[in-house]
Amino acid sequence: MTDKFNDLGFAKLDISRQERTGMSETVFCQSKTKEQLAKIYQSFAKEKISVLGTRCSTEQFEYVREAGLPVEYSSVSRIMKMCFSPAHKLPGKIAVCTGGTSDLPVAEEAAQVAEFFGAEVERYFDVGISGIHRLLSKIEQIGSAQAVISISGMDGSLSTVIASQIKAPVISVPTSVGYGASFNGLTALLTMINSSAEGMSVVNIDNGFGAGVLACRILRMIESYNAKK
Amino acid sequence: MTDKFNDLGFAKLDISRQERTGMSETVFCQSKTKEQLAKIYQSFAKEKISVLGTRCSTEQFEYVREAGLPVEYSSVSRIMKMCFSPAHKLPGKIAVCTGGTSDLPVAEEAAQVAEFFGAEVERYFDVGISGIHRLLSKIEQIGSAQAVISISGMDGSLSTVIASQIKAPVISVPTSVGYGASFNGLTALLTMINSSAEGMSVVNIDNGFGAGVLACRILRMIESYNAKK
Amino acid sequence: MTDKFNDLGFAKLDISRQERTGMSETVFCQSKTKEQLAKIYQSFAKEKISVLGTRCSTEQFEYVREAGLPVEYSSVSRIMKMCFSPAHKLPGKIAVCTGGTSDLPVAEEAAQVAEFFGAEVERYFDVGISGIHRLLSKIEQIGSAQAVISISGMDGSLSTVIASQIKAPVISVPTSVGYGASFNGLTALLTMINSSAEGMSVVNIDNGFGAGVLACRILRMIESYNAKK
Amino acid sequence: MTDKFNDLGFAKLDISRQERTGMSETVFCQSKTKEQLAKIYQSFAKEKISVLGTRCSTEQFEYVREAGLPVEYSSVSRIMKMCFSPAHKLPGKIAVCTGGTSDLPVAEEAAQVAEFFGAEVERYFDVGISGIHRLLSKIEQIGSAQAVISISGMDGSLSTVIASQIKAPVISVPTSVGYGASFNGLTALLTMINSSAEGMSVVNIDNGFGAGVLACRILRMIESYNAKK
Amino acid sequence: MTDKFNDLGFAKLDISRQERTGMSETVFCQSKTKEQLAKIYQSFAKEKISVLGTRCSTEQFEYVREAGLPVEYSSVSRIMKMCFSPAHKLPGKIAVCTGGTSDLPVAEEAAQVAEFFGAEVERYFDVGISGIHRLLSKIEQIGSAQAVISISGMDGSLSTVIASQIKAPVISVPTSVGYGASFNGLTALLTMINSSAEGMSVVNIDNGFGAGVLACRILRMIESYNAKK
Amino acid sequence: MTDKFNDLGFAKLDISRQERTGMSETVFCQSKTKEQLAKIYQSFAKEKISVLGTRCSTEQFEYVREAGLPVEYSSVSRIMKMCFSPAHKLPGKIAVCTGGTSDLPVAEEAAQVAEFFGAEVERYFDVGISGIHRLLSKIEQIGSAQAVISISGMDGSLSTVIASQIKAPVISVPTSVGYGASFNGLTALLTMINSSAEGMSVVNIDNGFGAGVLACRILRMIESYNAKK
Amino acid sequence: MTDKFNDLGFAKLDISRQERTGMSETVFCQSKTKEQLAKIYQSFAKEKISVLGTRCSTEQFEYVREAGLPVEYSSVSRIMKMCFSPAHKLPGKIAVCTGGTSDLPVAEEAAQVAEFFGAEVERYFDVGISGIHRLLSKIEQIGSAQAVISISGMDGSLSTVIASQIKAPVISVPTSVGYGASFNGLTALLTMINSSAEGMSVVNIDNGFGAGVLACRILRMIESYNAKK
Amino acid sequence: MTDKFNDLGFAKLDISRQERTGMSETVFCQSKTKEQLAKIYQSFAKEKISVLGTRCSTEQFEYVREAGLPVEYSSVSRIMKMCFSPAHKLPGKIAVCTGGTSDLPVAEEAAQVAEFFGAEVERYFDVGISGIHRLLSKIEQIGSAQAVISISGMDGSLSTVIASQIKAPVISVPTSVGYGASFNGLTALLTMINSSAEGMSVVNIDNGFGAGVLACRILRMIESYNAKK
Repeated sequence: MTDKFNDLGFAKLDISRQERTGMSETVFCQSKTKEQLAKIYQSFAKEKISVLGTRCSTEQFEYVREAGLPVEYSSVSRIMKMCFSPAHKLPGKIAVCTGGTSDLPVAEEAAQVAEFFGAEVERYFDVGISGIHRLLSKIEQIGSAQAVISISGMDGSLSTVIASQIKAPVISVPTSVGYGASFNGLTALLTMINSSAEGMSVVNIDNGFGAGVLACRILRMIESYNAKK
Repeated sequence: MTDKFNDLGFAKLDISRQERTGMSETVFCQSKTKEQLAKIYQSFAKEKISVLGTRCSTEQFEYVREAGLPVEYSSVSRIMKMCFSPAHKLPGKIAVCTGGTSDLPVAEEAAQVAEFFGAEVERYFDVGISGIHRLLSKIEQIGSAQAVISISGMDGSLSTVIASQIKAPVISVPTSVGYGASFNGLTALLTMINSSAEGMSVVNIDNGFGAGVLACRILRMIESYNAKK
Repeated sequence: MTDKFNDLGFAKLDISRQERTGMSETVFCQSKTKEQLAKIYQSFAKEKISVLGTRCSTEQFEYVREAGLPVEYSSVSRIMKMCFSPAHKLPGKIAVCTGGTSDLPVAEEAAQVAEFFGAEVERYFDVGISGIHRLLSKIEQIGSAQAVISISGMDGSLSTVIASQIKAPVISVPTSVGYGASFNGLTALLTMINSSAEGMSVVNIDNGFGAGVLACRILRMIESYNAKK
Repeated sequence: MTDKFNDLGFAKLDISRQERTGMSETVFCQSKTKEQLAKIYQSFAKEKISVLGTRCSTEQFEYVREAGLPVEYSSVSRIMKMCFSPAHKLPGKIAVCTGGTSDLPVAEEAAQVAEFFGAEVERYFDVGISGIHRLLSKIEQIGSAQAVISISGMDGSLSTVIASQIKAPVISVPTSVGYGASFNGLTALLTMINSSAEGMSVVNIDNGFGAGVLACRILRMIESYNAKK
Repeated sequence: MTDKFNDLGFAKLDISRQERTGMSETVFCQSKTKEQLAKIYQSFAKEKISVLGTRCSTEQFEYVREAGLPVEYSSVSRIMKMCFSPAHKLPGKIAVCTGGTSDLPVAEEAAQVAEFFGAEVERYFDVGISGIHRLLSKIEQIGSAQAVISISGMDGSLSTVIASQIKAPVISVPTSVGYGASFNGLTALLTMINSSAEGMSVVNIDNGFGAGVLACRILRMIESYNAKK
Repeated sequence: MTDKFNDLGFAKLDISRQERTGMSETVFCQSKTKEQLAKIYQSFAKEKISVLGTRCSTEQFEYVREAGLPVEYSSVSRIMKMCFSPAHKLPGKIAVCTGGTSDLPVAEEAAQVAEFFGAEVERYFDVGISGIHRLLSKIEQIGSAQAVISISGMDGSLSTVIASQIKAPVISVPTSVGYGASFNGLTALLTMINSSAEGMSVVNIDNGFGAGVLACRILRMIESYNAKK
Repeated sequence: MTDKFNDLGFAKLDISRQERTGMSETVFCQSKTKEQLAKIYQSFAKEKISVLGTRCSTEQFEYVREAGLPVEYSSVSRIMKMCFSPAHKLPGKIAVCTGGTSDLPVAEEAAQVAEFFGAEVERYFDVGISGIHRLLSKIEQIGSAQAVISISGMDGSLSTVIASQIKAPVISVPTSVGYGASFNGLTALLTMINSSAEGMSVVNIDNGFGAGVLACRILRMIESYNAKK
Repeated sequence: MTDKFNDLGFAKLDISRQERTGMSETVFCQSKTKEQLAKIYQSFAKEKISVLGTRCSTEQFEYVREAGLPVEYSSVSRIMKMCFSPAHKLPGKIAVCTGGTSDLPVAEEAAQVAEFFGAEVERYFDVGISGIHRLLSKIEQIGSAQAVISISGMDGSLSTVIASQIKAPVISVPTSVGYGASFNGLTALLTMINSSAEGMSVVNIDNGFGAGVLACRILRMIESYNAKK
């Protein structure tokens, strides 16, 4: 197992990652200058490697597009992607659920990341537990997915109810929505970590990306297990 | 408004509290020596004032009983009470709900405190949201109380579901049950404080006593409002 | 018990909440776009349902008003309400107390929410305990309410003094006023949660809305208890 | 979807959970008295339902065994199980990795829970990153599992290295091993939550049980997906 | 200014401290072995220097006494003192106030430390603000001291009320009394640090010793100012 | 003891405070609108009462001055004062010490507050312990004051060294200067609270005002003690 | 050992520091006004003393340059230096490693500080452990330095891997890069403090300066040890 | 670079570590059973490899000694070592300084670890800054070492003073000594991390071992640098 990577001076592009982890390239745009981003995308474009950028600002996107790169952007999910070939389609499907309308950006990040990596995604938005019947009326559909992403801020208990009602693995994403003692998502994170429900786990606050990738890994296991048989 | 109090040297008994706050005397036993407790109970016994002691150890109870005082004790709620006359009966009723069996001691403290002060109490134990239908099947009965006490540890979301399904005020009690990132109840406390459900509020971790007293105050408002009419 | 709700795509309006919890609709404006808000208000306007929006910015209000909706706005409480019929009047009254002038916005949120839901409200502002006689001179009037909302930042001890001097239930609201180790209201929250006074409970930092709703639930219990008799 | 449950007074047994979540019964022994435990196991024994108890003390186990119940116990994992029929075998396998020898109890809890629910488990113990080649020499074998559980205390970086080197989903379990600023596992938890590696998520400190159940849910998705085809 | 000190190997006794800071010797017993303590006291006894030991256990005291040293001990304050001459009497007096009976050990530590250094001390115990009139009835007497020590746990608001009613400087001591979100005195500490009252400051949790010494420094300033005139 | 206060609707001016606490009026400007401030100052101006405002912005000052009030302003200390008669001169003097140049604004707030209330102040700036001889060369002068204010951010150990070298009481003010794990002054606060040096106490982060007032209370005790003699 | 320093009123320049600690002057620009900075640089320029300023803004630099001082500036490291003679060259070399491209500013601060003080520096950027082979392929070169600075945010585990693979001392710098539960670098700091790897220690979040200085001290020990021989 | 290690089932002994990091074997005894420890020591004894165990209890030591292994034990430092050949002597020397007598166990752990690895160690105990002249009188001797370990609890400022007075690198060890808001060493850790003094870094609370190893790495750089020349 040897790693290949391109050295851009300020960054070493990890070209062998797809082979190693099964995922194509992703870029965390937030902490990079727009010039650095353009160079990174160019470097991938030369090799016709599709790439997904997260937490991309409108300004960053415009700079990269104007540099002549074939990128697409969603201002809700803040994803900037560059695709050279359709994603390999994964088996099964992923359900993305949110507690409230304010969790939308994180949910779209999770959903679009999963779609980029070839997953089929179903969205169940605004099904928070302060109106529990909204959730229960959808629970069978949600439970028919092979991986469920449950996104909520405030008190973060959505995941507990979902995980205790279905058979699929549940990935919880706390969001930074809230005020006062929500501590920018820390309370939701702790609530989810302490859930008494089985079959769920947690990623970082607002980390829709991480949840989307993890859900795809679960779907891929179906594929790789079947391939071995 | 002048206060009367007996001075025992180490403690000033607040004899006028009943008149001022409408509640008879209570003693927080935990941080007192058994000798101090016996003196305090004797001082009330002389005046034939009923008194409720919370967080009382078996050892403290036995010392006070052997000092000849007519006290009763519950090892579950850790309440030691001394009653000289039946409590004045309050209108309405209180529902006490718990998330799991481990919340029992706090629930009994809340329930017995409320009963000591004259309330009718209904118990709904082990109705946590990881088995949501246990709760929903009882929700109408719970909602027929005039004050609901909702007690849970772990992720503390029981209150959110209850408060969003009924019309009565809900008092949430986080418990120190749990492990890891439950931080002895702090996570449950924060979850409850951040709940997106309306109509609920929170008392200190394991503070069944405070919840019971507050619920009684709510019932008493019915009485005093009707008396004024 | 089945829930009705309108699905706006980004939000599911919980139309049956009034029936379930006894309160008409409320909207947390802060995390919504002005376009989303306008659609939500329009959706309620069609059904002639009164609605109360909290944490509404001036810009959001102006957008919704210009969309032709009959909304009213208070820049102090940041409440945007739309009323189609006078609120059903609740029995009794609520006292809203503050520690200092800086707690005014939270206090007005609590008071106006309570008034929206039909309560009579009396305001006692700037009665903090660093000038204890200001408070004690009003305590009998405060204590004649059926529910007391006590709002303070800094060290948050106002509630302790109030709760120990009256018979009514006390709802404490910590505010984010302060500096240094006030931690944006966390210190006041912890002080209130630890209060040695009986008969009080706590809502989230700056959550005037939650306190107002809870106080109304208490008044409504008088009504519903009397209705059953 | 209606829930069945037996009411033992202090506990409501959630008999329909297997049907709903696909897992048979589990009991969190820690916060229950030995008498309560014996009653719970008897209640399941009557229905010939297999049951898994976690965080069980030697004393609790001995009491339940002496009550005539066919239970088995591991003092390392602290699991007390009662089996009436062999577990349904799940497809694929699970790898359980630990950073150090002190993480053994949590690792065994995870492994034995997964085995109880029918999974094949491979153990990779003491492969922490302060001796990175111990880990890298095993990474291909680890990566051939369909779900990987990565357990470590101290600085908790084991998961980051594993997740970045394989294709399978990784479930991280922080442990309370350590001293000083390890804060009983909180530092490891935060490290894992912040990992820059993709494809991993986190459960509560020392929660081997939760990791084991979640890993089984992932394997079961292979089965249920293939069943639908 | 050169320091003199005796070197005992494990400790350097700071013999010139009296000259430098005006206070005779003190020893923090808690983290020392009884053998070390005996050597330290012997070393002072040889020079006929009076010494005050704080946080001394009964076992430590007995060992030192049996080593033939003329020590006195209070099991409430946990102070072990050895006096060779009466303390120089300080001008004015100190008032020591507590919120509840559980604050007694800290209060006695403060009071006895002040008395050891020559101050006149008046005790006002159990005057917490949940019975505000107990405090207000004594406030003039308290205010006639030149330094006031205000000791309380739970919510720690006693100091705010005292400091806002008198002219003397107030030293607040948070105590570790309480439960739940009292965090062993941290909440009381934060409450006191955030007090909106002027003229007060705070020492460490349970640090009666520090408060006593500081109060004596204030009295001594009267003396030294008058001496200079 | 009855309190007099003017009721401005949004604020109750505490007119009797001077009589009660010996200090004239102060106003915390930060959380007030400029219109409210102007009304408050006008209300005092009518009664010819001197007043000190802290944390006043340039904009607030200019509004109040333009409203015709005789106010003076310091942009360093952010104090806006209005004086109608020279302050009563206090006996003794106060030393104000800082660890670095960045602590200047807090130091000037402390110094100017003390001067407003009649104290003589000596300033010792930039004497932090990372250049310990700068401090030691001034220590005798510092120690000749009757009250010492020690202000520092970063690691906050200045107070420990000062308090252990002099006889006067030391008031420590942590400042919010620093970065990283300074947590806006919390680390300095905790360092000071834990100091092993005797004779010091702590006020809130950046609370130069509180330190200045407390130092004046100490000086005033000299005066009042001598007056009683 | 007497200290020399120039007194600028707002600052005491510590002129003897070079002699005492072996390092020439440094200035923490962040909390100083541009006017103060200019005066400080002028004061050093008069004595022909080289000086290094950290956390300098572009605006501060421009003001000082326009004041006629011979300063150089790097907008990446935010260092403003003024050199009058080449630095004395230190023996050996320092390796500066980063986990990601976002850690660049901190890394450049560390590297340029070390270069200012005469060290030879090698840079190894973007070698984070989520692509472990990038790091391992360089580890021998890194290990040939006499002091290694390891800089990373997110989960901060880079240092653990480096320290366990080489013989040189490792200085870890947590960075504030990250989001959610990274808490502005606190998680990385705690991870590093808890590392199970030997031979490493930690400086403050983003404190490239401190790491650079410490690394130089290590190199200088080689020199001073050899000089003594 | 390939790693050799013995697999004991529960532990993989990292036999190649000496070659890789230059240090012989160490064992963290605390979290191992005495049986595991005996097996580990036996495994090293077979290969005649010297080994150092830290945080070893008396009971563990006695079990291993009775198993016939040639171990030595210090009850102060809690180190159990087994030596087969004298340590290779390192150039230079290390100074170990403590703030108080209670820091002794951590100091001895640091010193004995350094001695085990071949360093010459000088001890400077009880030189805390509350008696600053004790420290300053020794500072030249301390500064003549090539690496200084500074150990203190309470407020942890010892390191700041030392680091600002000498040229050698300083390794700070916070200790868990203290009470109240010392938070078991966290306050000391934060103080040290925030120190304004240059040339120092921090290891975990009570981690004398880590400090000793790091100091030895610094000495070894002198040796390896000179060897290359």
